Amino acid sequence: MDPRVIEHAKVIVDWSTEVKNGDMVIINATPESHELVVALYKEVARAGGRVVTLMYSEEAARAFYDGASEKTLSLVPEHLKAITEACDVYISLRSPVNNMALANVDSAKLTLDSRTQQDIQATRLSKRWCLTVHPCQTLAQQAGMSLEEYREFVYGATLIDWKEESKQMYLIKEHLERHKDVRFTGPETDLYASTEGRIWIASDGKHNMPSGEVFTAPVEDSVEGSIYFDIPFLQQGKVIQGVRLTFEKGEVVDFSAEKEEAKLKQIIDTDEGSRRLGEMAIGTNRGIQQYTLNMLFDEKIGDTIHCALGRAYKDCNGVNDSAVHVDMIKSMKQGEVIAGDEKIYSKGKFFYE
Amino acid sequence: MDPRVIEHAKVIVDWSTEVKNGDMVIINATPESHELVVALYKEVARAGGRVVTLMYSEEAARAFYDGASEKTLSLVPEHLKAITEACDVYISLRSPVNNMALANVDSAKLTLDSRTQQDIQATRLSKRWCLTVHPCQTLAQQAGMSLEEYREFVYGATLIDWKEESKQMYLIKEHLERHKDVRFTGPETDLYASTEGRIWIASDGKHNMPSGEVFTAPVEDSVEGSIYFDIPFLQQGKVIQGVRLTFEKGEVVDFSAEKEEAKLKQIIDTDEGSRRLGEMAIGTNRGIQQYTLNMLFDEKIGDTIHCALGRAYKDCNGVNDSAVHVDMIKSMKQGEVIAGDEKIYSKGKFFYE
Repeated sequence: MDPRVIEHAKVIVDWSTEVKNGDMVIINATPESHELVVALYKEVARAGGRVVTLMYSEEAARAFYDGASEKTLSLVPEHLKAITEACDVYISLRSPVNNMALANVDSAKLTLDSRTQQDIQATRLSKRWCLTVHPCQTLAQQAGMSLEEYREFVYGATLIDWKEESKQMYLIKEHLERHKDVRFTGPETDLYASTEGRIWIASDGKHNMPSGEVFTAPVEDSVEGSIYFDIPFLQQGKVIQGVRLTFEKGEVVDFSAEKEEAKLKQIIDTDEGSRRLGEMAIGTNRGIQQYTLNMLFDEKIGDTIHCALGRAYKDCNGVNDSAVHVDMIKSMKQGEVIAGDEKIYSKGKFFYE
Repeated sequence: MDPRVIEHAKVIVDWSTEVKNGDMVIINATPESHELVVALYKEVARAGGRVVTLMYSEEAARAFYDGASEKTLSLVPEHLKAITEACDVYISLRSPVNNMALANVDSAKLTLDSRTQQDIQATRLSKRWCLTVHPCQTLAQQAGMSLEEYREFVYGATLIDWKEESKQMYLIKEHLERHKDVRFTGPETDLYASTEGRIWIASDGKHNMPSGEVFTAPVEDSVEGSIYFDIPFLQQGKVIQGVRLTFEKGEVVDFSAEKEEAKLKQIIDTDEGSRRLGEMAIGTNRGIQQYTLNMLFDEKIGDTIHCALGRAYKDCNGVNDSAVHVDMIKSMKQGEVIAGDEKIYSKGKFFYE
């Protein structure tokens, strides 16, 4: 086995989910991630846990939606509920068999199923959980790489010194929380928000692997100014690029996109909350140097910031609610992050560098 | 998708496990059987059930055993217990990634784990359960066939008229149960056993797919005579062939094998119960014409009988106990099955043919 797969498993078991004696561990995995499943079984066993793997497949999910009535989709999967409640750790390996398999399912069916399973999802998030990927052809293709290149990319982002990264992220968090606001500046960009009463979270690889971001939920009606997001992102099958947003009193008052502007408009018009920012964040993972149209990686690219329209995280004391949470990323090699009177980050360097 | 995969899924859902509205269904599957999983999802959805798939992999199991201490193997997997208890139907798809992956695991570890999980196994068997295979390269290779030939073989055995098969099997059972004993005769063979107070079970595809056998547990000390098993069988990695057994008062008093006699001796010497027959059965599935060293298929070959040394089935009112249950098969084109004064089967024909 590629020794990096074993290292990846160790990072997930030892750092992210801290599996210990007696833990009941669930892995949710596609058939594509079998190799990482094998590596995880050994590490969980070494840590003294018991492990069960749930097989996920977009093709199987699609077949289920094709066959299921509304009544069936309203039926709570009690057996899934039971295993979820009985676990301590939930590890999700997203390596799609085919990430377009659900593209043509009636969205009403997806919404109904998701509503039926929302308590199970809440239970899952109450456990020690972690989301990662195992390099596979479908993700490599989406990233525009060969599988071997994509492996380099994934392990470059995940097999880093998380203890050291964590220390730096907590330092950034601490400095941001000394102030009551934040400003992102740069080419075509000057965006201000109050962060009074909000929490900045240092995402140091416990829930996302890779991680590497410090994020908060800005005060909903305080966002003012303009921002240009130069990094493309994938939204429901469309690649949106070159987004410009202008805010007044927290609301988007002007917007444009160089590509797929109609899709951007649709996002902004979703509901009341989708016109406001639910998240403002700084990407810190310098193991990630390029975008791959996979938000798990892209929002953590080193020397970037990102903002999300829509739903805020309650852990940040955010209150903005929306059916969407859409992240958009800006490279900051020419930009600055300023909190109160302190330069947190300037053109490639944090204050401590 | 190969339409036979869809038909296979329908047989499992509609005939074997009779999935109905509100049923909680578990599929236990290897990554190799993904295609049948997809087909099953659609059929379970149509029947109104909810389905979760547990991924099984011999490679992952091996990695777990490699990493686990005795303490960890003594720990009941509570999450697996919870999902098993909460299900109505349990479908197991045996299509190994590599069926030799566990060959070199310390057998004490396997025994301990199996003991730890014995309540879960009992729960599983208390549900509507079914065991089948999805054709894959490893099984095709074991059977000495190409994958395409193996598909023909599997679907020839499974996609048959089970209602009609069932009717015939119940007729055979009914006639066998009119008598108090049974005799298998043929080349180098004349084996007698009392079946007084025992039940003959018509295995018509509810638990095994394919099935096709009518079996009982003979009275433990009543077996007398000799038998020659001409069909080879696989036992812990060894192919045993040409077994001859002689019984007195139920016990093996003489034995030989043309190949792997030492392995046969080891089976017979396992414990007290392994010297006696736990099962006598008639194979009825004429969709199976050749052996493939897979007992799920081989013991059901049409125009054969088989006997098992060791553990008897309680459902037959059998009492013989043993750590082993080893089936051995004899072709009966030149043989007869006689119950009391009635010829149940003679040289290729049942009494009703």
